[in-house]
Amino acid sequence: MFENVYDVIVVGAGHAGSEAAAAAANMGSATLLITMNLQNIAQMSCNPAMGGIAKGQIVREIDALGGYSGIVSDTSAIQFKMLNKSKGPAMWSPRVQSDRMRFAEDWRLMLERTPNLDFYQEMVSGLIVENHKVVGVRTSLGLEIRAKSVVLTNGTFLNGLIHIGDKNFGGGRAGERAATGITEQLVQLGFESGRMKTGTPPRVDGRSLDYSKMIVQPGDEVPEKFSYSDVTKPLTHQRDCHMSYTSPLVHDLLREGFDRSPMFNGRIQSTGPRYCPSIEDKINRFATKDRHQLFVEPEGWNTVEVYVNGFSTSLPEDVQFKALRSVEGFEKVKFFRPGYAIEYDYFPPTQLKHTLETKLVRGLFFAGQINGTTGYEEAASQGLMAGINAALQVQERDEFTLKRNEAYIGVLVDDLITKGTEEPYRMFTSRAEYRTLLRQDNADLRLTPKGYELGLVCEKRLKRMEEKHSKAEAFVEFFKDTSVQSQDINPILEVNNSAVVNQSGKLFKIFARPNISMEDIRKIDSVEAYIQGHDLDKETIEQAEIQVKYSGYIDKEKNNAEKLNRLEDLKIPSDFDYSLMKSMSTEARQKLEKIKPRTISQASRISGVSPSDVSVLLVYMGR
Amino acid sequence: MFENVYDVIVVGAGHAGSEAAAAAANMGSATLLITMNLQNIAQMSCNPAMGGIAKGQIVREIDALGGYSGIVSDTSAIQFKMLNKSKGPAMWSPRVQSDRMRFAEDWRLMLERTPNLDFYQEMVSGLIVENHKVVGVRTSLGLEIRAKSVVLTNGTFLNGLIHIGDKNFGGGRAGERAATGITEQLVQLGFESGRMKTGTPPRVDGRSLDYSKMIVQPGDEVPEKFSYSDVTKPLTHQRDCHMSYTSPLVHDLLREGFDRSPMFNGRIQSTGPRYCPSIEDKINRFATKDRHQLFVEPEGWNTVEVYVNGFSTSLPEDVQFKALRSVEGFEKVKFFRPGYAIEYDYFPPTQLKHTLETKLVRGLFFAGQINGTTGYEEAASQGLMAGINAALQVQERDEFTLKRNEAYIGVLVDDLITKGTEEPYRMFTSRAEYRTLLRQDNADLRLTPKGYELGLVCEKRLKRMEEKHSKAEAFVEFFKDTSVQSQDINPILEVNNSAVVNQSGKLFKIFARPNISMEDIRKIDSVEAYIQGHDLDKETIEQAEIQVKYSGYIDKEKNNAEKLNRLEDLKIPSDFDYSLMKSMSTEARQKLEKIKPRTISQASRISGVSPSDVSVLLVYMGR
Ligand SMILES: Cc1cc2nc3c(=O)[nH]c(=O)nc-3n(C[C@H](O)[C@H](O)[C@H](O)COP(=O)(O)OP(=O)(O)OC[C@H]3O[C@@H](n4cnc5c(N)ncnc54)[C@H](O)[C@@H]3O)c2cc1C
Ligand SMILES: Cc1cc2nc3c(=O)[nH]c(=O)nc-3n(C[C@H](O)[C@H](O)[C@H](O)COP(=O)(O)OP(=O)(O)OC[C@H]3O[C@@H](n4cnc5c(N)ncnc54)[C@H](O)[C@@H]3O)c2cc1C
Repeated sequence: MFENVYDVIVVGAGHAGSEAAAAAANMGSATLLITMNLQNIAQMSCNPAMGGIAKGQIVREIDALGGYSGIVSDTSAIQFKMLNKSKGPAMWSPRVQSDRMRFAEDWRLMLERTPNLDFYQEMVSGLIVENHKVVGVRTSLGLEIRAKSVVLTNGTFLNGLIHIGDKNFGGGRAGERAATGITEQLVQLGFESGRMKTGTPPRVDGRSLDYSKMIVQPGDEVPEKFSYSDVTKPLTHQRDCHMSYTSPLVHDLLREGFDRSPMFNGRIQSTGPRYCPSIEDKINRFATKDRHQLFVEPEGWNTVEVYVNGFSTSLPEDVQFKALRSVEGFEKVKFFRPGYAIEYDYFPPTQLKHTLETKLVRGLFFAGQINGTTGYEEAASQGLMAGINAALQVQERDEFTLKRNEAYIGVLVDDLITKGTEEPYRMFTSRAEYRTLLRQDNADLRLTPKGYELGLVCEKRLKRMEEKHSKAEAFVEFFKDTSVQSQDINPILEVNNSAVVNQSGKLFKIFARPNISMEDIRKIDSVEAYIQGHDLDKETIEQAEIQVKYSGYIDKEKNNAEKLNRLEDLKIPSDFDYSLMKSMSTEARQKLEKIKPRTISQASRISGVSPSDVSVLLVYMGR
Repeated sequence: MFENVYDVIVVGAGHAGSEAAAAAANMGSATLLITMNLQNIAQMSCNPAMGGIAKGQIVREIDALGGYSGIVSDTSAIQFKMLNKSKGPAMWSPRVQSDRMRFAEDWRLMLERTPNLDFYQEMVSGLIVENHKVVGVRTSLGLEIRAKSVVLTNGTFLNGLIHIGDKNFGGGRAGERAATGITEQLVQLGFESGRMKTGTPPRVDGRSLDYSKMIVQPGDEVPEKFSYSDVTKPLTHQRDCHMSYTSPLVHDLLREGFDRSPMFNGRIQSTGPRYCPSIEDKINRFATKDRHQLFVEPEGWNTVEVYVNGFSTSLPEDVQFKALRSVEGFEKVKFFRPGYAIEYDYFPPTQLKHTLETKLVRGLFFAGQINGTTGYEEAASQGLMAGINAALQVQERDEFTLKRNEAYIGVLVDDLITKGTEEPYRMFTSRAEYRTLLRQDNADLRLTPKGYELGLVCEKRLKRMEEKHSKAEAFVEFFKDTSVQSQDINPILEVNNSAVVNQSGKLFKIFARPNISMEDIRKIDSVEAYIQGHDLDKETIEQAEIQVKYSGYIDKEKNNAEKLNRLEDLKIPSDFDYSLMKSMSTEARQKLEKIKPRTISQASRISGVSPSDVSVLLVYMGR
């Protein structure tokens, strides 16, 4: 039935698989997306939301590279918020509340409109591997489909086991079956596999809630959007979320189920996401806290289904129910379905190269939850990188990787393959050394030229980005070049409690002061005239403001990054023989042999490899 | 978790379950709809279309009674056709092509907006029965949910087994799991169960088809709609379907797979729908036919997925593929998924009362495919009837049934419970004795007053219907009362090859002639003046035309029906002792004991009960 050899087969149409398929196909590779149910493409398994702290930056990066997640997040959004607006712009993080059904539908329709992309619904039960090279997949019906490369993105489905209280049953997600066969085969091929778990809260009937007892959480007054492209528009109206709190009573009620909790009675051994803990975890770990926030999030524009963010749990359903009924506003709550936990197989990602290709099997790439990560954004960005590299490999082009100072995606991949992960890996701003560089507002500047080179971004988008940034730069130059008289600026300084000046000076210096905002500085006629004269839009003005106000930080991080990149440029040959290095600690040697870092810099980030080990390495490499 | 006792629990949210839940809830019963996946409510398992011959009438009847299927068919339609327009109005049958995703979403949103209706996602694994009365259900998690009545609508899910070629695996539908436990328990309770099968064609990628080689099938130029209510509007634009043909080559290619066909090699024993045969069945049964029609139907407004109507098959997927590639326009076809057959458990419907309550367990109702029927419309109408009767029983109101001369739904239920069915039962116009009465144009006249009495139809709708019909009646009276001069009518008669008249006469008689249409008769000034003066709309005018032109047939069928209804009024006591009737054939006695007909008329329709058996019965009843 499949006569031709595909360039790329993507297994699984979750967030990782969908981005992988789109990227490979858009780069001109004949691509096949196989998934268990074509009706559930890019299904949001858990919370109906995209973005958030660090994750919002990732979505912007995906968009800047030509992925689809940003566009779909925009078209399916029901609420937009720029988080952390009160902090520095490195911390600003866009987040949307999504219409779950619309999100999946829009993804599907975008994929359908992608040339070179075929679809097939079935379960993949194994890979066809010849001479350590993947050459295709085998389906549960016994079909063999040939391909030059394969991207596995099985999410939580591999031997998925769902837990609620003391009951458990096979499943990849509530109401969907688990996938079997793949783990077993990979282990036979020499892969190491592990087990992780994640959980989800109950879904409830919005008609049974009393919102008057909760705190309303509206979207931003002037909503923005994810995609840098002009195919989407910011929302013109939005849906509210709400907030409520647990209480000591709620905690007591939950505790009553602890002996039947699979988390506490030993039934679940695998590790869950520390930063996305279940409510029972929170009560347990923070025993002194007498309440926790719950966000009450609508699942779409029209549906009454509601997601209870913060109440993830695998306690018995009667315990979940009784406890939630004691939360303010939830006195009459009705469940659509209880929360549950799921255990699934993953493959420690130290088995991967920077391209997300496996070290063991050529042409085989892993992306998403299968690599031990959690979150749609983390999955989507890996899918994008794996899809790109699968296509590049087939096209015999150079591989594509991102450095830690270039993108959160670079940090993510480097962390995974260098450090591995013992618990579901989630992105945080703190994981990035250069977060002042990796802002949500400049992801296009950082990555769109790369997306263009790859063939994922059209010239028009590149040109728009370049124009926006050169306008912003020129505006910054204007501040540097233009002086202001003390009598003009002092009234503004006074009002803002900023020390007055005695003589005229460059605008840049004044504007760089913490108390002085763009709004203030615009009161200077020449500034306003520049803006009007150059027809600067909101985005460009904001960009210039960030450049001026954070120039100190930005320059410092750029310097640091350059230093590091010099180490990054010191490549270690892939056949480097670590056994020669007797003076290195055994642990370091073993780790280095396993991870096979590509550069001195990567070697230095491996846990267990000390600065002195790195010095030894440098000596052996003749430095 | 479920503390209260529900009035009605509906198990399964297919077409039957969705209508059942809506009806019960709208009648004021506290209702719970439990289904395996809330994301798949009212999923169209097979063809993306509603209505068609006899089925379109059923949808109109459901709508007239206050069900939702008509409204959702309208809101999700992408093409409308009135079939059989060239035949008498008893044969006119509305049909829409549907947007599969929109259909499911609109159903879900309508149900969410229905008061008294709760939702819960889980698999029901058994019933709770006490003293031959159902008192609740048990879920796979072990929850017990109490109710006064339960409607089972499990569709094709009970021990569902999917076949493709010589492979088979458990499943309720492609990509969904089967339901287990219920059949086994019902059999223990004394129910008889059986096995049926049905099949579905491959889904293909519309981008891979060459439509220029096919025959375009547009919708009606002036599309109508299903719902009598004013909440929906006819389509303003539509999507085309296409048509192609199989060929002797295609048939030969298919035959190559016959030895691996589960239908022919004995692997599937159960009976499939005779009137919805698989392509291999068609080739086999009609060996002399050298081609069969294939309708190429888009799955929605925007998707590229296409349904290949007429190519239902469970042959091995490579055989399906090779054969379909030989169909004109399909030379480069790509599959989204192959066709397959599914075997599932059903319960012979002779175990039911007219209300669709089981005879064995009080408060337990069956509706849909579980009763051995096939088709969305058949399922939906049973769901509606079961939901209504479950609510009525709980409310201690009289049961609601429809006679054979009142509705196709009456024919359907009476056929099922009286005759049972050996193969998947599908509705046809030929099953109705009074099909001139059971038209798609008068379902509102027949049923809306009943819907109003049940509390399912609002007064406004009732009034609109009454107004429309009294206007039509008055118009008919006008034709009866108004004379026309020969010199006025003869030119019209001549043009239409109808014998001229010598003297003036009533318009009615002229208009009743076969060659004279409404368009013709409107050329008489007084007719046109009446229409304008009374502001008659298209529907009313059409109604009057049907009344005039078919008055003969209509009167005759009404007479017959009245005669029959006199027998229908002869009720047989439910404890009637058939063993006393020695002079009756043993077969008849056994059948009567099993079916327990409620009336002499129903008794006469049981196969194996002869007219002389009926006479015996009448004698025993003292007639
Ligand atoms: C219960 C639950 C709770 C979660 N909670 C959180 C949370 O609190 N916070 C958070 O950030 N993230 C959470 N997640 C994780 C988040 O959903 C995932 O990180 C993200 O969806 C992973 O994307 P993915 O593309 O890797 O896999 P998925 O989205 O899981 O998609 C996998 C896809 O692969 C398909 N597939 C699998 N195996 C096969 C096969 N053999 N053949 C064909 N197709 C196959 C599946 O059908 C599916 O379409 C949760 C997930 C679940 C299920
Ligand atoms: C492969 C296939 C081919 C078909 N081909 C045709 C055809 O050619 N022509 C035709 O007219 N009709 C065809 N049909 C039939 C048509 O789809 C059905 O007649 C119609 O959908 C029946 O409606 P229903 O409501 O009875 O059941 P379904 O639509 O099957 O719905 C059953 C519902 O019950 C739920 N459910 C089942 N068991 C449980 C449980 N234990 N607990 C909770 N929920 C449960 C399911 O999740 C589902 O939502 C086909 C169906 C299938 C699957």
